Amino acid sequence: MADLAPGGDWGDPVRSRIANRIARLGSETAFAVSAEAAAFAALGNTVYPFHLGDLNIPTPNNVVEASFKAIRDGKTGYCPNAGIPELRAALAEDLNASHGTSYSAENVAVQPGGKPVIGKFILALMNPGDEVLYPNPGYPIYESQIEFHGGVAVPYGYLEAEHGFVIDLEALEASITPRTRLLVLNDLQNPLGAESSPEELSHLAELVVRHDLMVLCDEAYFDIRYSGVSSSLASLPGMADRSVILYTFSKKFAMTGWRLGAAIGPRDIIEVIAKLNVNDESCPNHFIQHGALEGLLGDQAGPRHILSVLKERRDVAIELLNESSGVRCYTPNATFYLFPNVTGAMAQKGFSDVEDFRRAVLHNTGVSLCSRVHFGRPRADETEQYLRLAYSGIDTDRIVEGLSKLKAFLA
Amino acid sequence: MADLAPGGDWGDPVRSRIANRIARLGSETAFAVSAEAAAFAALGNTVYPFHLGDLNIPTPNNVVEASFKAIRDGKTGYCPNAGIPELRAALAEDLNASHGTSYSAENVAVQPGGKPVIGKFILALMNPGDEVLYPNPGYPIYESQIEFHGGVAVPYGYLEAEHGFVIDLEALEASITPRTRLLVLNDLQNPLGAESSPEELSHLAELVVRHDLMVLCDEAYFDIRYSGVSSSLASLPGMADRSVILYTFSKKFAMTGWRLGAAIGPRDIIEVIAKLNVNDESCPNHFIQHGALEGLLGDQAGPRHILSVLKERRDVAIELLNESSGVRCYTPNATFYLFPNVTGAMAQKGFSDVEDFRRAVLHNTGVSLCSRVHFGRPRADETEQYLRLAYSGIDTDRIVEGLSKLKAFLA
Repeated sequence: MADLAPGGDWGDPVRSRIANRIARLGSETAFAVSAEAAAFAALGNTVYPFHLGDLNIPTPNNVVEASFKAIRDGKTGYCPNAGIPELRAALAEDLNASHGTSYSAENVAVQPGGKPVIGKFILALMNPGDEVLYPNPGYPIYESQIEFHGGVAVPYGYLEAEHGFVIDLEALEASITPRTRLLVLNDLQNPLGAESSPEELSHLAELVVRHDLMVLCDEAYFDIRYSGVSSSLASLPGMADRSVILYTFSKKFAMTGWRLGAAIGPRDIIEVIAKLNVNDESCPNHFIQHGALEGLLGDQAGPRHILSVLKERRDVAIELLNESSGVRCYTPNATFYLFPNVTGAMAQKGFSDVEDFRRAVLHNTGVSLCSRVHFGRPRADETEQYLRLAYSGIDTDRIVEGLSKLKAFLA
Repeated sequence: MADLAPGGDWGDPVRSRIANRIARLGSETAFAVSAEAAAFAALGNTVYPFHLGDLNIPTPNNVVEASFKAIRDGKTGYCPNAGIPELRAALAEDLNASHGTSYSAENVAVQPGGKPVIGKFILALMNPGDEVLYPNPGYPIYESQIEFHGGVAVPYGYLEAEHGFVIDLEALEASITPRTRLLVLNDLQNPLGAESSPEELSHLAELVVRHDLMVLCDEAYFDIRYSGVSSSLASLPGMADRSVILYTFSKKFAMTGWRLGAAIGPRDIIEVIAKLNVNDESCPNHFIQHGALEGLLGDQAGPRHILSVLKERRDVAIELLNESSGVRCYTPNATFYLFPNVTGAMAQKGFSDVEDFRRAVLHNTGVSLCSRVHFGRPRADETEQYLRLAYSGIDTDRIVEGLSKLKAFLA
């Protein structure tokens, strides 16, 4: 990993001065896509940004005003390590309403974002050598954190079914060994937009009990859904005691850059995570928690507006993708991601490598997106090719413009 | 560690479900003092809070307004992992002006507070089994993070000299072995208020080169000084390449609850720390960085006001402490901490345990403070007894009231 070697500008120690564990640290390779898009735009080209899961929608005004008020009220000093009691209690109630659980404030540790929950879950529950099941394709930080802290990252995959993606439960079950300790489940999934059926959740719960596993339920997109209601593994009998839920304010309230989330789970684990808070960052930002409290308890017009904007974008994008030659994309009911199968389009255009195809799309149409390879190493048995679009950071009219160019390119 | 055992309420796994490494995780025991103070206040007693290093002074208004403006300008989405380029560049310039270094933006990784720099420095540079020198008495998180990540924490001490505390360099040097890899230096020190002389810094630099060490320069209090100018180990020849500076906005700008700081150091190490940012929290809060930028580049009346308030408090507190029977306290030129020697007072009042004495002070006078034991395990050769006062969170008139009661109690 050349970028991690000691630089020649900075002295010449014989050994690398960087710790060995850093060689096991992964990253989000999607940032390289951003750099390519920026370079293409710098040449004077129009770029349609579908590559990053950020939102270009303002944070609801009541959340902003409540945060301002908290600053004016002097909420600028430290707060308790696990967050302000009011927000912990409100989050517990919010989860109880949606999950049928019986959490209280002591089950909640507020975090500077949803992401810190991943590393803290791993640090709190995984010993070196433990095997951890994680989704692939999936958010690349799971694998990175598992391996960084000395675990064995064991991927499980998804199968493309008629109405979306389903977990390959047979393969998942076959990969469980006596060393398997943890399961990472990202239901309402990035990048697939997949959602577990009740049967899938039941099957997973049964495996969790049978193999005595603990679960990270990454529910970052739990409230980003367009019809029906989300369900959670943690709602199933016995599962709340075996689950740590990753909650974030980033998506529901368009607060990605504010950095506020929470870990919700059994008290013994939340106590450990709060102790990690003491060590890692003292406490989450104080005044933003008052804004988040208003978000949870106040007027819900903001989150409703965000969802209606996203739904319009989804519908437009899906339609244009499915009108494109050699492209097949099902309609996810949740998240703000699309994962179109482009195997046919690649064959028609003479591409065998999905990254070559992705770059050709960028340079011929300005449409910037990620591909399957940004969400984990492809498994040996994979035959289909996929791109991933995020429609959270691009307006409807520009979605139409960009994906129309893509459609013309593939015609 | 009973508080970490799996709770009986939550199932009954035979083995502990908490990872083994958590047994090595320390905490800040000063929080227990807060709880005792709160319990005493709940009984209707007046409490004088000298125990926590938080500030009861508002954040400068220009910083607040610049943060509000950034929210209104839509700086609510993700920013680059290592922070916004403008703030990285401004921090590099700020450090160059005070340190005589030649940092650029690439030498700066913005963090959600100063504290994350401690853990990331350890993760980036320490292998398991490496020995790390750290100050004791000192901030308890150093020892916690070293041991949590598998290192060997080797304490070094301070000696009480005529005009303040000095590092026991002879003992420090004697504790260096071939396994010693890192040195943690907190110059302008919590809890001692100590400041290294030019000779002490030169001696340390010589040891660093001779033993090929890397250094964490925790400079959280670099700008909290009342006369003269601060100096840094990183300013000495060759030291910038061996040092990571912990910078924080918490104290200078009364922003403890905002959580913003930075790691500044050699590019190879900052690249690793930025990669840890990707994994741990994606990025620091976006809009607060614009507030911090105004703090660095805008009107400096705010930080000047904060210093003048703190200096008044220091002078009043020092005078009353030195008028108290059996108490001796030198005048630190920096930080907002006092570390009075109370060996005589304890003997006069018949106490042999400093924690018993601390509780007696609380229950007889309402003065709540920490003792030496909250800053690391006392070494076997220590004979003197100390308390620690923070005057950052209590107004001058209440300092007078509280320390007058202490003086009467000790008379």
